[in-house]
Amino acid sequence: MITTRDEYAASLRALRRKVYAMGQKVEDVTTHPLTRPSFLAVAETYEQARDPENEALFMAESRLIGRKVNRFVHIHGSTDDLVAKVKMQRLLGQVTGCCFQRCVGMDALNALHSTTYEVDETHGTQYHQRFLAFLRRVQEDNLVCGGAMTDSKGDRKLRPSQQEDPDMYVHVVGQDKAGIVVRGAKFHQTGTLNAHEVIVMPTTAMSPEERDYAISFAVPTDAEGLVFILGRQPSDTRKLEGETIDVGSPYGGHEVMVVFNDVFVPWERVFLFGETEFAGILVERFAAYHRQSYGGCKVGTGDVLIGAAALAAELNGVGSVSHVVDKLVEMTHLNETMHACGLACSTQGRPTRSGAYMVDPLLANVCKLNVTRFPYEMARLAEDLAGGLLVTMPSQRDLDDPEVGPLIRKYVKAHGPAVDRMRVLRLIEYLTTGPGGAAYRTESMHGAGSPQAQKIMIGRLAGFEDKKRLAKRLAGMEE
Amino acid sequence: MITTRDEYAASLRALRRKVYAMGQKVEDVTTHPLTRPSFLAVAETYEQARDPENEALFMAESRLIGRKVNRFVHIHGSTDDLVAKVKMQRLLGQVTGCCFQRCVGMDALNALHSTTYEVDETHGTQYHQRFLAFLRRVQEDNLVCGGAMTDSKGDRKLRPSQQEDPDMYVHVVGQDKAGIVVRGAKFHQTGTLNAHEVIVMPTTAMSPEERDYAISFAVPTDAEGLVFILGRQPSDTRKLEGETIDVGSPYGGHEVMVVFNDVFVPWERVFLFGETEFAGILVERFAAYHRQSYGGCKVGTGDVLIGAAALAAELNGVGSVSHVVDKLVEMTHLNETMHACGLACSTQGRPTRSGAYMVDPLLANVCKLNVTRFPYEMARLAEDLAGGLLVTMPSQRDLDDPEVGPLIRKYVKAHGPAVDRMRVLRLIEYLTTGPGGAAYRTESMHGAGSPQAQKIMIGRLAGFEDKKRLAKRLAGMEE
Amino acid sequence: MITTRDEYAASLRALRRKVYAMGQKVEDVTTHPLTRPSFLAVAETYEQARDPENEALFMAESRLIGRKVNRFVHIHGSTDDLVAKVKMQRLLGQVTGCCFQRCVGMDALNALHSTTYEVDETHGTQYHQRFLAFLRRVQEDNLVCGGAMTDSKGDRKLRPSQQEDPDMYVHVVGQDKAGIVVRGAKFHQTGTLNAHEVIVMPTTAMSPEERDYAISFAVPTDAEGLVFILGRQPSDTRKLEGETIDVGSPYGGHEVMVVFNDVFVPWERVFLFGETEFAGILVERFAAYHRQSYGGCKVGTGDVLIGAAALAAELNGVGSVSHVVDKLVEMTHLNETMHACGLACSTQGRPTRSGAYMVDPLLANVCKLNVTRFPYEMARLAEDLAGGLLVTMPSQRDLDDPEVGPLIRKYVKAHGPAVDRMRVLRLIEYLTTGPGGAAYRTESMHGAGSPQAQKIMIGRLAGFEDKKRLAKRLAGMEE
Amino acid sequence: MITTRDEYAASLRALRRKVYAMGQKVEDVTTHPLTRPSFLAVAETYEQARDPENEALFMAESRLIGRKVNRFVHIHGSTDDLVAKVKMQRLLGQVTGCCFQRCVGMDALNALHSTTYEVDETHGTQYHQRFLAFLRRVQEDNLVCGGAMTDSKGDRKLRPSQQEDPDMYVHVVGQDKAGIVVRGAKFHQTGTLNAHEVIVMPTTAMSPEERDYAISFAVPTDAEGLVFILGRQPSDTRKLEGETIDVGSPYGGHEVMVVFNDVFVPWERVFLFGETEFAGILVERFAAYHRQSYGGCKVGTGDVLIGAAALAAELNGVGSVSHVVDKLVEMTHLNETMHACGLACSTQGRPTRSGAYMVDPLLANVCKLNVTRFPYEMARLAEDLAGGLLVTMPSQRDLDDPEVGPLIRKYVKAHGPAVDRMRVLRLIEYLTTGPGGAAYRTESMHGAGSPQAQKIMIGRLAGFEDKKRLAKRLAGMEE
Repeated sequence: MITTRDEYAASLRALRRKVYAMGQKVEDVTTHPLTRPSFLAVAETYEQARDPENEALFMAESRLIGRKVNRFVHIHGSTDDLVAKVKMQRLLGQVTGCCFQRCVGMDALNALHSTTYEVDETHGTQYHQRFLAFLRRVQEDNLVCGGAMTDSKGDRKLRPSQQEDPDMYVHVVGQDKAGIVVRGAKFHQTGTLNAHEVIVMPTTAMSPEERDYAISFAVPTDAEGLVFILGRQPSDTRKLEGETIDVGSPYGGHEVMVVFNDVFVPWERVFLFGETEFAGILVERFAAYHRQSYGGCKVGTGDVLIGAAALAAELNGVGSVSHVVDKLVEMTHLNETMHACGLACSTQGRPTRSGAYMVDPLLANVCKLNVTRFPYEMARLAEDLAGGLLVTMPSQRDLDDPEVGPLIRKYVKAHGPAVDRMRVLRLIEYLTTGPGGAAYRTESMHGAGSPQAQKIMIGRLAGFEDKKRLAKRLAGMEE
Repeated sequence: MITTRDEYAASLRALRRKVYAMGQKVEDVTTHPLTRPSFLAVAETYEQARDPENEALFMAESRLIGRKVNRFVHIHGSTDDLVAKVKMQRLLGQVTGCCFQRCVGMDALNALHSTTYEVDETHGTQYHQRFLAFLRRVQEDNLVCGGAMTDSKGDRKLRPSQQEDPDMYVHVVGQDKAGIVVRGAKFHQTGTLNAHEVIVMPTTAMSPEERDYAISFAVPTDAEGLVFILGRQPSDTRKLEGETIDVGSPYGGHEVMVVFNDVFVPWERVFLFGETEFAGILVERFAAYHRQSYGGCKVGTGDVLIGAAALAAELNGVGSVSHVVDKLVEMTHLNETMHACGLACSTQGRPTRSGAYMVDPLLANVCKLNVTRFPYEMARLAEDLAGGLLVTMPSQRDLDDPEVGPLIRKYVKAHGPAVDRMRVLRLIEYLTTGPGGAAYRTESMHGAGSPQAQKIMIGRLAGFEDKKRLAKRLAGMEE
Repeated sequence: MITTRDEYAASLRALRRKVYAMGQKVEDVTTHPLTRPSFLAVAETYEQARDPENEALFMAESRLIGRKVNRFVHIHGSTDDLVAKVKMQRLLGQVTGCCFQRCVGMDALNALHSTTYEVDETHGTQYHQRFLAFLRRVQEDNLVCGGAMTDSKGDRKLRPSQQEDPDMYVHVVGQDKAGIVVRGAKFHQTGTLNAHEVIVMPTTAMSPEERDYAISFAVPTDAEGLVFILGRQPSDTRKLEGETIDVGSPYGGHEVMVVFNDVFVPWERVFLFGETEFAGILVERFAAYHRQSYGGCKVGTGDVLIGAAALAAELNGVGSVSHVVDKLVEMTHLNETMHACGLACSTQGRPTRSGAYMVDPLLANVCKLNVTRFPYEMARLAEDLAGGLLVTMPSQRDLDDPEVGPLIRKYVKAHGPAVDRMRVLRLIEYLTTGPGGAAYRTESMHGAGSPQAQKIMIGRLAGFEDKKRLAKRLAGMEE
Repeated sequence: MITTRDEYAASLRALRRKVYAMGQKVEDVTTHPLTRPSFLAVAETYEQARDPENEALFMAESRLIGRKVNRFVHIHGSTDDLVAKVKMQRLLGQVTGCCFQRCVGMDALNALHSTTYEVDETHGTQYHQRFLAFLRRVQEDNLVCGGAMTDSKGDRKLRPSQQEDPDMYVHVVGQDKAGIVVRGAKFHQTGTLNAHEVIVMPTTAMSPEERDYAISFAVPTDAEGLVFILGRQPSDTRKLEGETIDVGSPYGGHEVMVVFNDVFVPWERVFLFGETEFAGILVERFAAYHRQSYGGCKVGTGDVLIGAAALAAELNGVGSVSHVVDKLVEMTHLNETMHACGLACSTQGRPTRSGAYMVDPLLANVCKLNVTRFPYEMARLAEDLAGGLLVTMPSQRDLDDPEVGPLIRKYVKAHGPAVDRMRVLRLIEYLTTGPGGAAYRTESMHGAGSPQAQKIMIGRLAGFEDKKRLAKRLAGMEE
């Protein structure tokens, strides 16, 4: 059972995987400068859980294995669990200022718990027991799971089965008594290089003829046939420069493209195959959990951004000027509104038939739709408070140069020393237009589904017919 | 104990009060056409409570009198109570489409419960027992309480004690063994004509020399010296026209100016007098409860507005056009965001020392600040969907005219009959620029404090220093 | 030739028309309290033109009749003319604080000038000469023209020719050597009761089989068969109360439903009939001119609202508080942005083949789309600065009452006297949720087409293909 | 006289300067990969001017030297000149998709033309003639001028003369018969490495005792004592990777910190020294011109972004989906609103006493304030349309890799080939969170002054007293 950063690093190093980054193979993701920040972020999900003060948030009693487990491998058993999840995520966002990557797996586990249960009820299958066996090992060993949903998708106008190239969505290309063989690619895979297992789900509802696409399963991340290609982030190679200030933060996230080159999956790891009407249900449940998640993690990152903006203004000597305070208050207001949505969809959660608690889907979608907007406005306000130096500041190499370094120290000082200003501005840059911006902006936009996906769900769940009845009654119209 | 609309009407008719409206005296507020809609709205707080389906929301066990009471006279004993309050308010907003006026008193009772307890702890006074005696009667008789906070305020640049005219804030002008005599005026008093009792609180924090202004007390609304002057609302006199369609809704709210012309208050009804440091605390607690309230009532009214807008589009034949659906979804999104804030500040509530549960003050202020924005945008979207006919539609008198009535019926019909379109557009007009707009817009803006008041509180509660520490850690700055 | 308010009033009184308002016939629109404010507003288009200081804005040299005419009957002959139009409109908005109603006719005249010319070029018809003969009389007599575009439209899903009731769009129901007979109704007709002539245009593009709907013509407003029904506005009947403060402003606008009950139109007044491909062109040109107009008139009304909000804050004693100033600056910013759009679409105008200058259609649509948004936000900010008294203030009848009047004077005073506060708040109420709000809000939304109409035009005129080419070049993509 | 890219390159190579970037000296800015993109962008100001189709926009008749000059060295002699400036800027923004850096100098020249004239009128000085002599050479040789305004500023709470370190604002530290010696640093200097001359201006209004800070002058960029340190931009070092796709665009801008280490300036190049009351006037004029500029260049960049977003959607197969079109229309609407403001402040310009035309200052500030908001929203919408691949896409090195390259080509293809998608997404990344984002976002925010600076100016120019008078008249209040 993994409990420390070091144990976790060792467990990752034990995996033999094909990982590419910038045209080269990555041997050890825990030490490679491009991936180490993201390893460090996930490691906090272990380290913070060791802090006795955090126990209520990070540890939960597993009904399955009968002892406390890390919440990231826990099945929510109450609305209190759902609330604790969001608060834990905010705390980790505050600690890391980035995506700590372990939520996708947590949300996948929870979505599969109730969905496999209900598939079995309908079809008399055995998916839930298989899933529980898998979950037992994940809980006992405290593993990191990635969750793989978004397919490459090809032409968005066409359904999975209509694509010219049938591999545009992950699908079964072979099967025998031992298991199935799958092919395709999953995009935007958050933190999968730091995962021991990857849980695959469909990316959308499937029609009856799309049986081979209606699949869910888990494979170890060093399964034969898996290829990982690291995505580029803004300013990513600053991590290769060997200095700290210009990077902005010691932590970071990552996304990879995961290619499934005819990967074999034994039957005991298959959690859905062919029950097409449940593909959409699984997607919606995962999405709802994950849309809740953003009401935690992004709020924590927002706390860091607010603090950094306040600090930048203070170091300029204008920390208490009225328009500055007004902007900090506005940032706080937007940030807490997102958190309120994250909390509300949690407290309004309900049990599913498997016992796993589900968030309120309408409020979870509302939460996420706000997350596609407010971090952008918060970033704008932070850039306002930061001042233009945000993008005109010399490099640390210049700061270290014997000739120009002293000039920088002399002229960049303000109400505080130059180096402090540079550090806090680099952090703001990191969060808004740097590697952290990939998480704070683009992931806020597209993670757990793009805004239009939330709008569609809100429209479905809005209850317009009920609302029309309310209006008719007051307007004096006949039903 | 009042439990029905009729009993409630009788109780109001028993009061002998000086009420002015449009330059004339109002003898019976339950029948006068200008005030009857607001009586009907408050009456729903009794009638809905009788519906067994609503029991969980409307009835709560009083620890004071040992039986179930209407939630409007209940002291919140848990976060579940706080949540039930917000959901009850949403339901009543859906039923009445307006301000049902009884929340101010509920919020005043709850704020006084904990504040009087703490004043007594500090000063050895007996306010809490006096208050409990008052509360007992309110609970036993199921009375409607108004809550009077906003003073006339005179020149806003000057403090209460600095005003040229000392009566600009309600204050004590005399006292003897029996009680105190107070003078001043309270503005914007929601629903006070429908109240049996009015609970007076200070409008702002008081400085040590403002002892005579640091007062709280309750008087019956027919106390000697009270004068009530009804405020005008947009399109208010349509209620005098004797027709229904042009008014838009059978319900409505009202506000009055309440003048205290040397009103006597016996000591047993005085809940604060001179303990100046508690004036601000009482204000903040009342404000926090009331800012929570808007996450319920305005959301319910918003449900009606969404339904009406959907209906208007449907009657035009464009109910499923993409930009129409997008606007309905956006309205829903904004509405549910406010509700999420109302729920979140409730579930994150905590007990005070008196046992009364308090909402989370940061989230309650965030809730209200959203309420100063979103209903305006929702109204704008509703006006978009309604079409221009909203403000160019003939009167019902024209509709009833033998010559032009048939022309109206012929030409106003669309995907549905003319009268249906007129009814739903009049409802939208009512909610946006009619009498209901006074509640849905202006009250959303200024009720429980104008937006700047929320911004100041958010700034105080934001924890900027903690956030700076988070940023410093990530930026690698020394503490 | 009409040049003064009195001459104008006399000319209106000479018309014998069927006008209904609130179920009764209106004999004289210049004196009836419901319509007099709108007469007064139009009268300013004559009175302001007499002020020598305003000559450059209000008077322009007519090439047709060879002398200066009021700009409201002028055909724009340069971009300077287009700019002068917008500035004149802003000035009149400042003077009247409402819709002064004469722009629709001006915009209809200009749209017909170029369209009739081009129809004749294509079809060898004689519309342009007919139109010029009509225009000559309008210019010589300085007449007010209404412009009638919006049909009743019936079911919006169906085209004009598909409606169950063929009269849902104005159409020709008979014709002979003398002329045509038309039937239908035009809705939302701004200021038509104050017009001498009404110019009818189609409301949308017509398909080839909709010849009878592709018509344009002019009739005097007292033509046989016309019926006018006044639309209700918020708080409209305050004008009947005989007092001034509660109304808010001496000026106002109006809209009427105009029914064409088989109205005969002689051929010399028919400007389009059956040339279906020009129906859409005429609509677009009128719409473009009218979308420009809003960059003038609404900005002038906005100036009044900004002034009123500044005054309200000043009378409260908070005129120089930072958040107040910030809101006034924001209102100004939004207001000037709309004006910038009105000016830009004017200076970028171009001559049509008839010589009449046309505004830039893209920028005119951009102008109007901003007008569907910014006045709402400005109204919201004004309501913020006004304070809650906006909707809780007693009536003037109470102010005049010997008993409660003195109480109101005592308690409503602030940094200035009570009556001043009441006057300015009633003006803000008038502009936001009163009769003026019908113009400042709903007309801003729907006048000259609802926002979706502007979006469609912006999409058509955006030049997306050109923009894609720019992107391809920079991205290094092959064409 | 420089007229081609090559001549321009040669002229830059002839300069001997101390330029630092990433801790190393830069010898040739025209070839160094970090600076070459910005050289290429400025070079377009020469190359585009050679295109006969662009002559009206790029060339203007100089009254000073009696022949056509490049508009970047022209003094605006009419509102047509001001309009042409904005349109030229939009075109260059379309061509380069970045800041082409030559506007600061153009705006500085124009601001100095009128200001020196008026200083001479007041003080009997000879600044204007000196300035004209300088201008003559700039026009004859077609030089690029940088404009240096923003000082390092130290503690923002303190005035220039109150700073602990007197060098926080550029000031005179010595003078003799030959000239003056100046010390200090100018920050955020756009494109100065591509300039032949740098024109220095004060950064703010100066008080009477700040004579030594109230200076303006020009020096060649290879003057003794100047040190240039290149600012870092997001993803800047991608330019060092030797590939094209990952950079996103061949063009770019740059900013440098310019240190004045006791630089000598001969008197004939001093344009202000000690006339403190004109420091603020010079700043305001430059700022107004530069705030106008953003209504051109950022709109051109916006055109590229709109095209790229449209292309990205098209390549996904969703180019005509309703929510996609709606977002493209919204982007266009915002973009054209900015352009309308740029045009309007130009056409409403007026001559100064020197003959140079000045933009309308209120509308120029309104223009810029919109630019601090709309590009951020446009970037957000572009990121929405781009999809998550924007920040998860493999590097070009991976694409070129024999093993993973084919996988990328297979799975990244959609409605179009993988490489096209990658190219257009890298362009969007460049414009939003890459090096171009420094210009499109942060420069839009802070260039020509941060938003609060525009708000202050709008407040000053709003004419609140006039607006209050309009309101008083309508409200019936006495003056």
